[in-house]
Amino acid sequence: MQTYIPPIDDYRFLLNEVLGFDQAMAELGKEVDADLALAVLDEAGKVCAERLHPLNRDGDEQGSRLVDGAVQTPDGFAQAYRDFADGGWTSLSADPAHGGQGLPFILQLWFDEMMSATNLSFGLFPGLSRGACEAIAAHASEELKATYLGPLVSGTWTGAMALTESGAGTDLALLKSRATPKGDGSYAVAGTKIFISSGDHDFGGNIVHLVLARLPDAPPGVKGISLFLVPKYLPDADGGFTVRNTMSVGSLEKKMGIHAQPTCMMHYDAATGWLVGEAHRGLAAMFTMMNAERLMVGVQGLGVAGGAYQQAVAYARDRVQGRSADGTRSPVAIIDHADVRRMLLNVRAFVEAGRALAGWTALQLDRAHGHADAGERAKADALVALLTPVIKAAFTDYGFESAVQAQQVFGGHGYIREWGMEQYVRDARIAQIYEGTNGVQAMDLVGRKLPMAGGAVVEGFFDGIAADVAAAGDLVIAVRTGEALALLREATVALRGAGVDATGAAAVDYLRLFALVAMGWMWTRMAVAAGAGETALHHGKLAVADYYARRVLPQAGGLAASIAAGEGAIMALAAEAF
Amino acid sequence: MQTYIPPIDDYRFLLNEVLGFDQAMAELGKEVDADLALAVLDEAGKVCAERLHPLNRDGDEQGSRLVDGAVQTPDGFAQAYRDFADGGWTSLSADPAHGGQGLPFILQLWFDEMMSATNLSFGLFPGLSRGACEAIAAHASEELKATYLGPLVSGTWTGAMALTESGAGTDLALLKSRATPKGDGSYAVAGTKIFISSGDHDFGGNIVHLVLARLPDAPPGVKGISLFLVPKYLPDADGGFTVRNTMSVGSLEKKMGIHAQPTCMMHYDAATGWLVGEAHRGLAAMFTMMNAERLMVGVQGLGVAGGAYQQAVAYARDRVQGRSADGTRSPVAIIDHADVRRMLLNVRAFVEAGRALAGWTALQLDRAHGHADAGERAKADALVALLTPVIKAAFTDYGFESAVQAQQVFGGHGYIREWGMEQYVRDARIAQIYEGTNGVQAMDLVGRKLPMAGGAVVEGFFDGIAADVAAAGDLVIAVRTGEALALLREATVALRGAGVDATGAAAVDYLRLFALVAMGWMWTRMAVAAGAGETALHHGKLAVADYYARRVLPQAGGLAASIAAGEGAIMALAAEAF
Repeated sequence: MQTYIPPIDDYRFLLNEVLGFDQAMAELGKEVDADLALAVLDEAGKVCAERLHPLNRDGDEQGSRLVDGAVQTPDGFAQAYRDFADGGWTSLSADPAHGGQGLPFILQLWFDEMMSATNLSFGLFPGLSRGACEAIAAHASEELKATYLGPLVSGTWTGAMALTESGAGTDLALLKSRATPKGDGSYAVAGTKIFISSGDHDFGGNIVHLVLARLPDAPPGVKGISLFLVPKYLPDADGGFTVRNTMSVGSLEKKMGIHAQPTCMMHYDAATGWLVGEAHRGLAAMFTMMNAERLMVGVQGLGVAGGAYQQAVAYARDRVQGRSADGTRSPVAIIDHADVRRMLLNVRAFVEAGRALAGWTALQLDRAHGHADAGERAKADALVALLTPVIKAAFTDYGFESAVQAQQVFGGHGYIREWGMEQYVRDARIAQIYEGTNGVQAMDLVGRKLPMAGGAVVEGFFDGIAADVAAAGDLVIAVRTGEALALLREATVALRGAGVDATGAAAVDYLRLFALVAMGWMWTRMAVAAGAGETALHHGKLAVADYYARRVLPQAGGLAASIAAGEGAIMALAAEAF
Repeated sequence: MQTYIPPIDDYRFLLNEVLGFDQAMAELGKEVDADLALAVLDEAGKVCAERLHPLNRDGDEQGSRLVDGAVQTPDGFAQAYRDFADGGWTSLSADPAHGGQGLPFILQLWFDEMMSATNLSFGLFPGLSRGACEAIAAHASEELKATYLGPLVSGTWTGAMALTESGAGTDLALLKSRATPKGDGSYAVAGTKIFISSGDHDFGGNIVHLVLARLPDAPPGVKGISLFLVPKYLPDADGGFTVRNTMSVGSLEKKMGIHAQPTCMMHYDAATGWLVGEAHRGLAAMFTMMNAERLMVGVQGLGVAGGAYQQAVAYARDRVQGRSADGTRSPVAIIDHADVRRMLLNVRAFVEAGRALAGWTALQLDRAHGHADAGERAKADALVALLTPVIKAAFTDYGFESAVQAQQVFGGHGYIREWGMEQYVRDARIAQIYEGTNGVQAMDLVGRKLPMAGGAVVEGFFDGIAADVAAAGDLVIAVRTGEALALLREATVALRGAGVDATGAAAVDYLRLFALVAMGWMWTRMAVAAGAGETALHHGKLAVADYYARRVLPQAGGLAASIAAGEGAIMALAAEAF
């Protein structure tokens, strides 16, 4: 395995030349500039490259294990986590009111990229803690906040989300876990949850589970679900947390990948918990954490793709097979072969546009939280809501496909475990599934996000793209992005008011088309910023933008045609005829 | 895991209503009709469903192991193999002159489909034996043939292909293994080979390795490679095979999938072997086995997709989540959701067209071997040569993508090992890589197969499609296939005489477009055969043909545009700039 090289040069380019970072921070009154941001990213990159990456392969081979009912993470994970927390890396963008560093969210999201590139299993520990913090901060009582937020932000404790049950995945209306008031303000939570990432570990400290369950008087369906904070350790009389709650790990899921991550089946045996937010309003509270998590999960796809890209490039430069195209040299490095370059460029075209789009979206999230003007906050918030399913689904689909292509560069060696490429593929696969499958994301985009503000949000987003494309003149990437945008706008209009079947039939292709255009937009902006391409980085940006325009964007037409085909061809067969 | 249901009804439809099987056999003077063929397929399907499928999951968990230098296959594999051989299942389409049953190749290829659907690791054992048989039958001396073909055909012995070395994969010119004449007609073969499927096992009997190596006087490059037959056991004085040859398993490769298959690193320590074919002409002999193997590997993709489809349909019927589209029922089986159907239909649209195309190609192979007229034989042989890389690459790409989509239907459960869906994905992945990566297949198609007979072979193939499409009238599938064929013809003309870079830049997209059209052609033929759709099977064919036309074929335009973009965007970056 090659050492991971944090993409600091690309971050610098994006902050300074594409995303207008200093100006954006100034507008929010944040005392952060690109130099400071890059210094943070540089240190974060070192943590990923030097501490997390070396644990990744062994973590996969060893996996987390359940020993006498307790999780043992792979060798080195516990110490790495403690060092990670001690270094302040759990609290980058957390609210200073809760002990966070209050840095812009873009730093967290790009840090997530680098963590996912180097150790996806590890990254889920701090990632889930952040989700728990957001839900607690937004919905919990002052008392719960005072008790739990500090240690979660500092990383002394970690968080977990316990939503899914064996009969209730996408459809949480079906969940059966119960919570009964104990009369002292606490509840007895009972049920079994599956697929609980970071449900237990051996890092020390408390583990704060946020558990969905029904109160005795709950109405049926999703309107009867409440959220409970259920810690592994309960407070004792002395203010310590030493009393073991009645919850236990039933088993660890045996999975395709992320073996180092302890994905738990959890039993809550009348475990003591406290209500977070209002009774029966747990779904709203849950979405607070889900939305933050979904951006992170999208960026997991991006990270894996970037990590796999680096490995594939190093291998393609090193591996010699075959002749040069002019027949004069043999053997040559396989990076000289057009088909190998095609695979690498597919990955890179996604990674660099994805990195830019994630950064842009993160800046919108900071605006949504921190802009002085309420209208600007609302506008930015709507844009984040619009882009969240796109980033979650498209980035994880492209991330998986990228890992597969990077693996293909290795030929037979790509299939062998020791080379590490197949781990990227196995690990990346989960991100298309968890935090709402990518099909569910697409339904969210078409069914819920396009109609926001009567369609004004998505139209505003498209107008912004159109303006940038127009300003870019006759650059091929701008012209082609404009053409794809026209197809996307048509599809958007056609899907307005579509029924459930029509939405479901079109949604995945629509989301993909949306992502193609959004990344074309980012390539347009990067190409404009690259000017005449005088530095190596600028030259590379122009070349990959051109590749994206000529070799990736042509997919738009097929997607548009498939969307336009409607649901007829999909619903024609009876269920028994499959 | 659901029981596997052999697709006998679909085979019957194809033989009787689409492929004109009885007529084709009559033309070849073969005394086989569809009834007999279906009886054989029915029995073959039972072997797959009842014997091979139940071993598949445990085989994956247990894997083959190396114990004291010898391979131990997973529990049950050795007995299953012996029963398989005793049942005559290794010799279906083998030449009766060597003890084979002389049945048409279509039965073997569809049997391969069912084996791959139920136990890909197992299927490689008889599959590699067949490849070895073909090379020995075509190139070896009469003495070698007399000794080795009988036991290989009967399955008493098995075969293995030892081509790849750590520094020589795609580029066999780089291989370093040596063979030195021993003066008695035999050779001492020395070298280390990697990725040797079925290189050793515990089924009993001899293992016949076909090993590529260089003679002392070999010219450099691919023109200095010879093929040697190197058996695990050498003949003793009494005519038995009891003398252990000096070859050994160095290690088993730890792989992403096909864990039950012992993929060996093999050491040949001056192992005794015999030349197969002429000195320095080993590559030609090797391609004899590679071509047969490549069709089988393509069908592995098809088989996995078909197996995964059955599991996904069963799950989608059983799993209840969410509401019906009209909002009146909740929860409903997820097969009612449009996006779930979309995934299932994508898989099915490939599986059924792929099954038909594999069958059509297999019939051509029988013509190539058995037609009375030499011109017809040559014509059929050229069509097989044209379609071999298409089937190998497109079917394995679609096979993998199908496994991924079938896994996605399962949501989180798809990621958990016990459900078995992730094994399909891991197993299917190898087929895109071995027997020549899919990139190499695409280069073969564009660089070697399109120019055959000055382009007349491919043009003739297209003319056949055009005729069927024209005869089908205004069926949507026919019209759309015709449109895609026009794009494919344009691309074919444009690639005529293309240089190496232009070929490499276009090849993978070109092959995909070719496959899209070829499968559209099969859907056209199936739709025509389905008539008014009065039986359930016919109705299903019409529905899926329509789906393919409206939702899959639109990809053709994007592929054509990407092909037309040329190599410029791919070759623009310097190797250092990746």
